[in-house]
Amino acid sequence: MLKKLTMAIGIAGLLTGISCADEGMWTFDNIPVKKIKAKYNFEPTQQWLDNVRLSSVRFNDGGSGAFISKTGLVITNHHVASGQLQKMSSAQKDYLKEGFYAPTQELEQKCTDLELNVLFDMKNVTEEVIKSAEGLDGEKAIKARKAKIAQIEKANKEKTGMRSDVVKLYNGGEYWLYTYKKYRDVRLVMAPEKQIAFYGGSYDNFTYPRYDLDFAIFRVYENDKPINCDHFLKFSTKSPEENSLIFVSGNPGRTKRNITYSQYLFSRDFQYPAKIYKYNKILKNLYAYAKQDPESARRAETLIFSYENSKKVSEGEFKGVKDKELSAIFKTKEDKFRESASKDPKQKAELDSAYNDIGKAVSKYKERYDELAFGCLGGNRLPEIAFVIVRYCTEMEKPDAERKNGFHDSQLDVLKYEYLSPEPIYDDLETIMLRSYLEMAEENLGSKEKNPIVKMLLDIYTPNERAKQLIAGTRLKDVEYRKKLMEGGLKACKQSKDPLIQLALQMEPIKAAQEDWYQKEYESRVVPSVEKIAAIKFKTYGKDIYPDATFTPRLAYGPVKRYETNGTYAPCKTTFYGLYDRYYSFKGTGMKEWDIPKIYLEKESKINKAETLDFVYDADTIGGNSGSPVVNTKGELVGINFDRNTEGMTRQFMYDGRYARSLAVSAVAVLETLRNVYGAEKLADELTKTGI
Amino acid sequence: MLKKLTMAIGIAGLLTGISCADEGMWTFDNIPVKKIKAKYNFEPTQQWLDNVRLSSVRFNDGGSGAFISKTGLVITNHHVASGQLQKMSSAQKDYLKEGFYAPTQELEQKCTDLELNVLFDMKNVTEEVIKSAEGLDGEKAIKARKAKIAQIEKANKEKTGMRSDVVKLYNGGEYWLYTYKKYRDVRLVMAPEKQIAFYGGSYDNFTYPRYDLDFAIFRVYENDKPINCDHFLKFSTKSPEENSLIFVSGNPGRTKRNITYSQYLFSRDFQYPAKIYKYNKILKNLYAYAKQDPESARRAETLIFSYENSKKVSEGEFKGVKDKELSAIFKTKEDKFRESASKDPKQKAELDSAYNDIGKAVSKYKERYDELAFGCLGGNRLPEIAFVIVRYCTEMEKPDAERKNGFHDSQLDVLKYEYLSPEPIYDDLETIMLRSYLEMAEENLGSKEKNPIVKMLLDIYTPNERAKQLIAGTRLKDVEYRKKLMEGGLKACKQSKDPLIQLALQMEPIKAAQEDWYQKEYESRVVPSVEKIAAIKFKTYGKDIYPDATFTPRLAYGPVKRYETNGTYAPCKTTFYGLYDRYYSFKGTGMKEWDIPKIYLEKESKINKAETLDFVYDADTIGGNSGSPVVNTKGELVGINFDRNTEGMTRQFMYDGRYARSLAVSAVAVLETLRNVYGAEKLADELTKTGI
Repeated sequence: MLKKLTMAIGIAGLLTGISCADEGMWTFDNIPVKKIKAKYNFEPTQQWLDNVRLSSVRFNDGGSGAFISKTGLVITNHHVASGQLQKMSSAQKDYLKEGFYAPTQELEQKCTDLELNVLFDMKNVTEEVIKSAEGLDGEKAIKARKAKIAQIEKANKEKTGMRSDVVKLYNGGEYWLYTYKKYRDVRLVMAPEKQIAFYGGSYDNFTYPRYDLDFAIFRVYENDKPINCDHFLKFSTKSPEENSLIFVSGNPGRTKRNITYSQYLFSRDFQYPAKIYKYNKILKNLYAYAKQDPESARRAETLIFSYENSKKVSEGEFKGVKDKELSAIFKTKEDKFRESASKDPKQKAELDSAYNDIGKAVSKYKERYDELAFGCLGGNRLPEIAFVIVRYCTEMEKPDAERKNGFHDSQLDVLKYEYLSPEPIYDDLETIMLRSYLEMAEENLGSKEKNPIVKMLLDIYTPNERAKQLIAGTRLKDVEYRKKLMEGGLKACKQSKDPLIQLALQMEPIKAAQEDWYQKEYESRVVPSVEKIAAIKFKTYGKDIYPDATFTPRLAYGPVKRYETNGTYAPCKTTFYGLYDRYYSFKGTGMKEWDIPKIYLEKESKINKAETLDFVYDADTIGGNSGSPVVNTKGELVGINFDRNTEGMTRQFMYDGRYARSLAVSAVAVLETLRNVYGAEKLADELTKTGI
Repeated sequence: MLKKLTMAIGIAGLLTGISCADEGMWTFDNIPVKKIKAKYNFEPTQQWLDNVRLSSVRFNDGGSGAFISKTGLVITNHHVASGQLQKMSSAQKDYLKEGFYAPTQELEQKCTDLELNVLFDMKNVTEEVIKSAEGLDGEKAIKARKAKIAQIEKANKEKTGMRSDVVKLYNGGEYWLYTYKKYRDVRLVMAPEKQIAFYGGSYDNFTYPRYDLDFAIFRVYENDKPINCDHFLKFSTKSPEENSLIFVSGNPGRTKRNITYSQYLFSRDFQYPAKIYKYNKILKNLYAYAKQDPESARRAETLIFSYENSKKVSEGEFKGVKDKELSAIFKTKEDKFRESASKDPKQKAELDSAYNDIGKAVSKYKERYDELAFGCLGGNRLPEIAFVIVRYCTEMEKPDAERKNGFHDSQLDVLKYEYLSPEPIYDDLETIMLRSYLEMAEENLGSKEKNPIVKMLLDIYTPNERAKQLIAGTRLKDVEYRKKLMEGGLKACKQSKDPLIQLALQMEPIKAAQEDWYQKEYESRVVPSVEKIAAIKFKTYGKDIYPDATFTPRLAYGPVKRYETNGTYAPCKTTFYGLYDRYYSFKGTGMKEWDIPKIYLEKESKINKAETLDFVYDADTIGGNSGSPVVNTKGELVGINFDRNTEGMTRQFMYDGRYARSLAVSAVAVLETLRNVYGAEKLADELTKTGI
């Protein structure tokens, strides 16, 4: 009897627990307004939704943010801004470390290459795209749709002058044309010290309770003047209560909630182990480099953070996918869908063959997995630049429709902005990164005597020698030289003596062949099957479900809410008291992650330490949502989303609202520190006193 | 290759990680001084060790403590003292809730039935005990040894007038006669409010970071005067640094580190599920009772705490024993020992048969498990009192050597003290507890129509009716009546019309038969086998290893040390800042567990909030160590051990020093609050300014 009792809390219970959560990253055309109204007695109006959408911005290097004043101020996370902060910095002036505040507009610092996008318009183009591939199969259908999409994007760009992206949703259940207003004159107004923005460093990253002040404020200019915003989110001066409803507006990067169980197992057994191995390898080399001297440490800092970040995510997700209960839930969901969709025998046959085809493709992929994962020219910036230049030159010889993704006419603008902008590139850092990739190729594919790709990558050298030789010999740090090559085309590349360009030329056909194989043997088998499944799913569930994340604007919602962890509750919020607790708890141990900028010790008595610093909510976010505005029902900004907890790491595959939480810096903490720590009262006033 | 990499971190790595820890609860005759010296460059002298032992006290109701002044002050945990605090309390005056401070000795409050023991002398009596059973087998050997032990205890008690216990160590590898000095006039001097002592309630219990002020201070009297202590631990006025060595002196209750793998599996599959079921059942009934009104809530509070406590421990341990890696480690340890001990063929045969016999006995036990676990008269106090009286009267008709354990002449003093002392007994609480046990019997053994034991327990009633009838009808609340029955013997019991005594009389032969069966079929088969294994283990490893815990004085040691948890580090200590953070983090959510006594808000500005509140260390403790003094190398008191973290819950079976930590309230936090919160400067001075 006893055993039955303890066994009874099984999958069913878990499914109920999980499905109570406010799962979903909803597109702005399909916000589940009725569901929200029923559960929270709040019904967002179209005007409310439009204002949130038009106040939300996407950071083109991966992140989200929001307009927060009529005068063009934009808030995001410090860690979204950190790439720009680092580019502004030098050995003399370290904005990341010291923070920044421009008390007047003249002192605001222009960003090197930051582009912000606002989703201005959305149009459903599903019919047009689907029709373009009618009667076609497999690869041909994919090609036809690609061509159609490129054509729609190009036409809209020409018509509107705006960024135009056709977005595939529901794995092809829908296609939408998204028109973005873009801003390129973005200037830094305020950033706190990294030590307080990223308090607790990589250790505390993805954990909660947290005490981070992870924000930075920019201002958007046009024609050298601050823009006049019609839409922005006003700062709330009150922190949200537990169980109050909030919305998160941002650009979640990627989820895989609709993959098949065979793909899920592939992730578990191949992709995650490979990723974690890669992060460990690179971090090992980066730490050895950073240890040399303070300048090396500064140079490596952003990369180390980024890889530590990725590693922690992957390890968390890996733990999630290995979890037996959650695996069972994933499989149960698939089984249930197949069962209910299989009542129609025709549909059953379609589904069976689709699942079967995906299973077979996955098996084939496994066989070549190591080669595709490690048989490439990788590194930090220079190998990538070499590769992009060679590919650009190769692709430009083809008509637009036949080019690889990223090289269509409509995309060249972005591409050139990214690869022809000046940024500091450090030879030693480039060398260590390239060496890491060469070592990984050798370790996973075999010695150069055995493997022709490794032979090509290493030539006669060891990984270390080869990395040194390539980085020392390349001229690609010179933006003018890159321009010259891109303008000169393949011929210029072939004539160049640049060793990285030469290696990229050698690797290009191999890489292209790998991609072709992947396209033919995996993608063109899997995608149609996935789409077939998606279509039946779409038919079965309709828009009651949300599409997988695609780094496009989404709205998530849910309550501010504590959760069970570590045998007790993590509270729904933290306070400044906790910041000082963590500081003094680690004081004297030599762990600098929990140091506090001196100014926080000097100003302690000025700070209202009972004020909310960070808070958590049961809303469905993922990487890309960094910097997302967290909005209350009044449409006010109550926080800036900056992280999610390790307990929620399964959300790549499923959202487990029992334990998954997203984290925000509270708007009141921003105001509190602007006023009482940084002497930025003027800025605080601009955020709270401008009329709508 | 990748898969091999990730698989490689296996049992071997774990074993290394675990074995680095300072595992061990060492007896005072066998402190691994050389090991400590080698690792920490500190060598405790005999004088140092004697002072720690003679300053340490055992609380007879399960806990530890220490003398902390020449003037007889003793410190322990608030939760060790809470039983006494509750007994002092009434509906009018709730010492648990309000706390207590006696500014003068006259106001110190005498405890109802507290006994403290100090281990005064230790003598190895192994030879004598072993010899007594020479040439005897199984049950006969056990009986012979029991008789010898009773004789040794009695003789020593007569000689010294002190409490005399023969302690079996190393599962029979050694027997020691422990002579304890006992104190029975113990008076309460100071206890903070339960709200701050047990901050975070059952939720935070067994977790860390913690912010508890879990201490209480008593004074020991003899002849109505404070005793004059030769040995006590002086308060340190400095909190210990990370990595500094500390010692924990206390009475760990019970560990099972030397059971066989078959017993381990039995625990996992039978004992833990049963325990957890039992705690859930009782707690459900207790919560329903406590909800009625505030007085019921107060009455149930200690019981609820105690069962919540046990439940959390059991659930933690259950999680531990279910862990595959740790199970594998447990098995590997056994395999390794058997392998190395099996080089001698005779020894191998002995071991094989011992393991085999244990396995068989476990199988038999499984068959009768439910009956033995649930076929009994259980409850809170009254059913136990009834049972003990009947058994006492039964046993007293036998000669001393043949009596059951607990009823030997040398033990009667303690027994009478426990069962003939006045204490508040609440009918409704007794009813609800008895009902829980009756329900469990019915649920697990079947209806009274089917099961004769259930029939006897319930008679013609439902569990609820029967509990009411028995409690309403019994006179056992009356201590004089108990005395009368005990003096009147079995005859008086039989003549009594008391329904609980009548039921106890009916149940006694059944219980005795169950115990006989258990003794014959399990214990007398398992114990000799365990001892055979223990003897070979003792021969193999000697006193390089420590014996399982037996609620007798032990010394554990290790560094103050942070640990990895939740993706980051838990610091080695917490501060008063964290207390306020947790308070404000839950403020307004209705969770009263994180309320703070008002005085802490009034006195906030007086408190040095950066001061250490609690701290953790990698030293091997378990239940019973509550209140143990934590001592630095100078022999000063730096903390009072009050808990261990959930990560360390496997320590019943093995100590995993990677994550297991014990928790203490820091001595400086005691001084800080005595001086700056409670206005108890006089007491603080007594603790810091008395000369040695």
